[in-house]
Amino acid sequence: MSHSQVIIGVDLGGTSVKAGLVGSNGEVLYQNKFPTNADKGPSVVIEQIHLAIQDAMNNRDGAEVRGIGIGAPGVVDDDGVVKAPPNFADWDEVPLKTELSKLFGGYPIGIENDANAAAIGESKYGAGKEIPNFLFVIWGTGVGGGIILDRKIFRGPTGGAGEIGHVCIDYNGPLCNCGSRGCVEAYVGQRYLSQRTAERLQSHPESKIWQLVSGDLSKIEPKIISEAAHNGDVVAKEILLEAGELLGTALAGVMNVMDLRVSIIGGGLSAAGDFVIAAVQDAVVRHVLKPLKKDIRVLAARLGNNAGILGAAGLVA
Amino acid sequence: MSHSQVIIGVDLGGTSVKAGLVGSNGEVLYQNKFPTNADKGPSVVIEQIHLAIQDAMNNRDGAEVRGIGIGAPGVVDDDGVVKAPPNFADWDEVPLKTELSKLFGGYPIGIENDANAAAIGESKYGAGKEIPNFLFVIWGTGVGGGIILDRKIFRGPTGGAGEIGHVCIDYNGPLCNCGSRGCVEAYVGQRYLSQRTAERLQSHPESKIWQLVSGDLSKIEPKIISEAAHNGDVVAKEILLEAGELLGTALAGVMNVMDLRVSIIGGGLSAAGDFVIAAVQDAVVRHVLKPLKKDIRVLAARLGNNAGILGAAGLVA
Repeated sequence: MSHSQVIIGVDLGGTSVKAGLVGSNGEVLYQNKFPTNADKGPSVVIEQIHLAIQDAMNNRDGAEVRGIGIGAPGVVDDDGVVKAPPNFADWDEVPLKTELSKLFGGYPIGIENDANAAAIGESKYGAGKEIPNFLFVIWGTGVGGGIILDRKIFRGPTGGAGEIGHVCIDYNGPLCNCGSRGCVEAYVGQRYLSQRTAERLQSHPESKIWQLVSGDLSKIEPKIISEAAHNGDVVAKEILLEAGELLGTALAGVMNVMDLRVSIIGGGLSAAGDFVIAAVQDAVVRHVLKPLKKDIRVLAARLGNNAGILGAAGLVA
Repeated sequence: MSHSQVIIGVDLGGTSVKAGLVGSNGEVLYQNKFPTNADKGPSVVIEQIHLAIQDAMNNRDGAEVRGIGIGAPGVVDDDGVVKAPPNFADWDEVPLKTELSKLFGGYPIGIENDANAAAIGESKYGAGKEIPNFLFVIWGTGVGGGIILDRKIFRGPTGGAGEIGHVCIDYNGPLCNCGSRGCVEAYVGQRYLSQRTAERLQSHPESKIWQLVSGDLSKIEPKIISEAAHNGDVVAKEILLEAGELLGTALAGVMNVMDLRVSIIGGGLSAAGDFVIAAVQDAVVRHVLKPLKKDIRVLAARLGNNAGILGAAGLVA
């Protein structure tokens, strides 16, 4: 490794914690993967993060480490306290930045919510490199996001900004697991999407999805819907087009309110195909106010599997 | 007038232009009103603004004028260019700040969109004095707004932020005059609200609204619905409660995305009664994400008829 300077990016997830060495142009030079052990409580999780970072350090091949960035689930406040990450046991509020400073005190440490970190990653290294203001969307299990204004993350007053999954698109709509009704996540999030596909398949015995799941509809997931769509399956295409349109409707409202023209879509579902991104774009154009229409662009995120590590690295200035 | 320093606040509307002298605590010490003559083109309108400001100057009674603030309809860019204000003839883009600087060159001049100016007014002098971050809503003919972050207006990348009226609350909903569907304005804006009331009255011959409009349903306006509600009319109360709930649903999405806890409601309909504000609050609480729920506050704006002049004055630092 001939790089003289690297940043360590840490992607803390519910299942695994990954640390990588990132070069100055966003190249991932090395990466590892450790179990998070999220069910064992904060001190065990911190130890796993410690291991992952130390392993990356050991592989830096003489390069200078400029800092450590960590993307974490949950709300992350200005002091690097991580609050209530879903599926982490006994984790109410943990001062992760303080804890890691004890272990790696010599380095600048940045901690941010994972969706915000991914938005920063796309801004620094990905599809948003040339775009100063955009709405980043993670479309996968749920729908989340981050807002980039003037190339910086907009965290909101308490660090919770960017929750675009819980914008209502039908006040009489289905219950969302947030307790509200008609949230866009309750239409296009992974679980709901798979459920709607299963329902629709009842009247479509010809759909290719039946074979892809060997007749077991509980196996439907977006990857399979996407695969079927790529193979020309009509039901799959319809489901994804509808989902894109509904997502676009929600994004349009946010883009109106925040005066934004660009949205970058990441997460598992963003890989479903260009036609889905195009459907989101069409819906946004249809729903935004006139002065915005001609400048609307909806783009697929570019960082793919490296989004977590690169986003985290992007936290180090 | 014993004030040593005043600001001149100018409220430019489609019908009249008002200028006032504002003391340091937000007292309106003097105000006037001139016809805008918006149908006669920009140079006539600028002359009317000139007259209104000069008249205020003439009545300042020796006080020092600290600056001139102007709230204008339409989009106002960073250079004080006013773009396409509705109902102003031959007005595409007019560099109002430059024009007024020629006439009143000695004074600092601030120009801002009228909804943003009103938000700043509530922040400096009104219900938002103690609240660093809030979403301001103008609920009247249409639904507009402004966003206050850290006591400053959030203008967005091009000065168009705050358009909360065109957040969708039902993707299958009625057409809005913006061309989209199911915008909250298409449910709770003055015209739509009056229309729905008229429809509902067909099956409610007992409603007091019939008398208030002397049987002419085209005369229904929010002031009348509000009056009927105050007199215990069930239809009127229902209509306003529903409207408050729908508005709250839209606000909740924006508050989720921007991490905001407080909304301040101004405009004609905010005066319909505390029960409407309470209905908005209930709906916001029901629809926002859990971490926000306990801190949600929906407040009525305080500046009332003086909002325009005070908001404009608030533009001068």
